[in-house]
Amino acid sequence: MRARVLIRPKAGILDPQGVAVERALPALGFAGAGNVHVGRMVELDVADASQLEEMCRRLLANPLIEDYEIEMISDAPAAA
Amino acid sequence: MRARVLIRPKAGILDPQGVAVERALPALGFAGAGNVHVGRMVELDVADASQLEEMCRRLLANPLIEDYEIEMISDAPAAA
Repeated sequence: MRARVLIRPKAGILDPQGVAVERALPALGFAGAGNVHVGRMVELDVADASQLEEMCRRLLANPLIEDYEIEMISDAPAAA
Repeated sequence: MRARVLIRPKAGILDPQGVAVERALPALGFAGAGNVHVGRMVELDVADASQLEEMCRRLLANPLIEDYEIEMISDAPAAA
């Protein structure tokens, strides 16, 4: 089955990419955007979904500074 | 309103992070994982959701090598 892991900087941890995007948006003429956070997304097929939690802790995320969220997705990734 | 943008390497574009994760998982004892892709996630508050498409094209993603997907989310980001 296919899973998606969303990884974000923990609250209070510096998010320099988020800050950079938040500053760049008004400079490009986009008003009204705020609270911008940039994280990572990992999508993978797994045989055993119960392993995902441990995969996150041991490889995909850094639990000291990042939170992660696991979603099961059934469909293939959509193209934009 | 809060939006989430998922950004992935286009099909056929090299995804070295995905390859690295896919190789590291079996070495850590996780069998059965495959088709691993690593992308970015941007979450932000926007006043005008119709601007998101252009934000992606002009700043958040590189349309030459990345696909993006826009999701509207109502709730605050969940902590893991």
